[in-house]
Amino acid sequence: MIGILGGGQLARMLALAGKPLGLQFMFLDPADEACASELGEHLQGDYTDRALLAQMAERCDVVTYEFENVPVEIIDFIAEKTPVYPSAKALAVGQDRLTEKNFFRKLGIATAPYYAVDSFERLQEVMPEIGWPAILKTRRFGYDGKGQAISRSAADLQQAWRELEGSPVIVEGFVPFRREVSIIAARNISGAIVYYPLSENQHRGGILRLAKSCDNDPLQSQAESMIARLLEALDYVGVLALELFDLDGHLVANEFAPRVHNSGHWTIEGSETSQFENHLRAILDQPLGNTKTRGFAAMQNFIGGVPSLKEVLALSEVHMHLYNKTPRKGRKVAHATIRSDTPEALSGRIAALAKLAEQTDDS
Amino acid sequence: MIGILGGGQLARMLALAGKPLGLQFMFLDPADEACASELGEHLQGDYTDRALLAQMAERCDVVTYEFENVPVEIIDFIAEKTPVYPSAKALAVGQDRLTEKNFFRKLGIATAPYYAVDSFERLQEVMPEIGWPAILKTRRFGYDGKGQAISRSAADLQQAWRELEGSPVIVEGFVPFRREVSIIAARNISGAIVYYPLSENQHRGGILRLAKSCDNDPLQSQAESMIARLLEALDYVGVLALELFDLDGHLVANEFAPRVHNSGHWTIEGSETSQFENHLRAILDQPLGNTKTRGFAAMQNFIGGVPSLKEVLALSEVHMHLYNKTPRKGRKVAHATIRSDTPEALSGRIAALAKLAEQTDDS
Repeated sequence: MIGILGGGQLARMLALAGKPLGLQFMFLDPADEACASELGEHLQGDYTDRALLAQMAERCDVVTYEFENVPVEIIDFIAEKTPVYPSAKALAVGQDRLTEKNFFRKLGIATAPYYAVDSFERLQEVMPEIGWPAILKTRRFGYDGKGQAISRSAADLQQAWRELEGSPVIVEGFVPFRREVSIIAARNISGAIVYYPLSENQHRGGILRLAKSCDNDPLQSQAESMIARLLEALDYVGVLALELFDLDGHLVANEFAPRVHNSGHWTIEGSETSQFENHLRAILDQPLGNTKTRGFAAMQNFIGGVPSLKEVLALSEVHMHLYNKTPRKGRKVAHATIRSDTPEALSGRIAALAKLAEQTDDS
Repeated sequence: MIGILGGGQLARMLALAGKPLGLQFMFLDPADEACASELGEHLQGDYTDRALLAQMAERCDVVTYEFENVPVEIIDFIAEKTPVYPSAKALAVGQDRLTEKNFFRKLGIATAPYYAVDSFERLQEVMPEIGWPAILKTRRFGYDGKGQAISRSAADLQQAWRELEGSPVIVEGFVPFRREVSIIAARNISGAIVYYPLSENQHRGGILRLAKSCDNDPLQSQAESMIARLLEALDYVGVLALELFDLDGHLVANEFAPRVHNSGHWTIEGSETSQFENHLRAILDQPLGNTKTRGFAAMQNFIGGVPSLKEVLALSEVHMHLYNKTPRKGRKVAHATIRSDTPEALSGRIAALAKLAEQTDDS
């Protein structure tokens, strides 16, 4: 039995990848409607409910999680009884943007300039070095663009500060990137590593909209070397995603996610082995699966609503993934993956899907 | 909600294909351990249980089945309330080998020579025309080589007859085939049809062991034309499999199965859209998915037992499909699919998998 903290779409897709491997799943999720629950046992309750956590630890061979805001002490609690991957250390480093950036720096992984700031005075002090525009981010519990404020000039600095005031904050310089990319890798208990091709990612409003495989990208080996350092330094087990900015050939790390990642959803049909299957193989110490891309692949998110299934399925080489979640403003409710033999065919399908996505996207 | 009569591995794989399309499933199966049941609701009871059938008809938008021995009156009973695909007609024709062969003949689809025989005297009478070796088959309820007896010469004819005596029987001439192949096609409610590439199949003891995709096979269009006639004549909806003998370039029909088929399991990773997804698209009248093969694909069955997961997954481009069934002598408990970019790589993997399969195959 595999225990998963969280019962959302990532847990759901992990379970779908695990069924052919003969695996059983248990999900801890407070939500009544946790969309993974139809694929296993649903322990409904708070993530801090010790009785439920003990039950999961007792009954599972291994535990993992689908979101990075799990309190570290919960991982420690479960880990007393049963292995948890990725480890509490990976989780802890990733939960605090300052620790994360310092960790990058220690490993020689380039980042945008940053400072921890605990007062407006300190913020004003470091701004000459950071420059404008700058991004203020809460150190903890940000996702999908939440917990961020942009300052475009000295004039709006105080306003940006007020938006986040009260939380520990870092300020980051803006790096003039050509594109946003991510690299996903998996490392198993025995230390074997596989890397996926880079994904080129398009966000809007802080939410990922489109991710596209980049085969034979000139920056692939640079990205692999960066994520390899992280995997080794954290003695990491499972799938790790690293978000990067491409500064005209030079990669700068933004943040990592110690879990399967939205920018890797095209691996379901696009790769020989999906990120979901490789995460499971990794935490079970099975040999990792081949990560090569089958042709060219991409993923279009559907936010807030889903277009007609008929219109999506009428597109050749397009695969629908509905999460069985009630549509709500700004909520990721589905994605479609596209796999094509040529970049031209892929571009055509992406355009068609993006148009369909627009119809129902309310964000 | 999709209702499926039967909760075995075919139902299980249909459900796994249906989850990303947002579908819910209900399975009627007498077995306690029906292996699909972890993916939906399990109505446990006999296939003739009218109360359960009524419940399924009441609650499902459409009903389908995973085995061809469903009594036709059950389909008729459900169809009064909710659509059932494939139709009772397709089922009825396929359930009786004589009706099936006559149907082939009527459609101009070549078969081996055959006669219905209702007495040993009649059998003796037709043997000069059939010739030896000959195969006696019960007209109904045969599968995986069951309900068959071979006569190799006049000397053992009576013994073969006695093995099946009491059931309505047909006798078939042996066709000296070069290989056994099958073609799988899907037709949706609107009448659109897609065809998969031929599969080359190897049986032993009447049970399929290995199936291999045949891209650009010279007999593809011959096979398509044969199955197209069946699909149209039956006003068929869903996936249909047609087993054929290749007599040096000339195809002869053996039998059809009105369902997803073991020889199409390599379509899960090997095809752009799997037979399971296309069956669901067909019965929901959705556009059918692209059926092209991604490189070269094959499937190895695991009978009676499963080799070590580690050894299977250590093979690159190999995907394990465990059915969560208790191993039993001669029982299909899992398969692995292989997908490779070259026929050579495929052959190497097939050899390695066949070796692993041998270790646990007790049949």
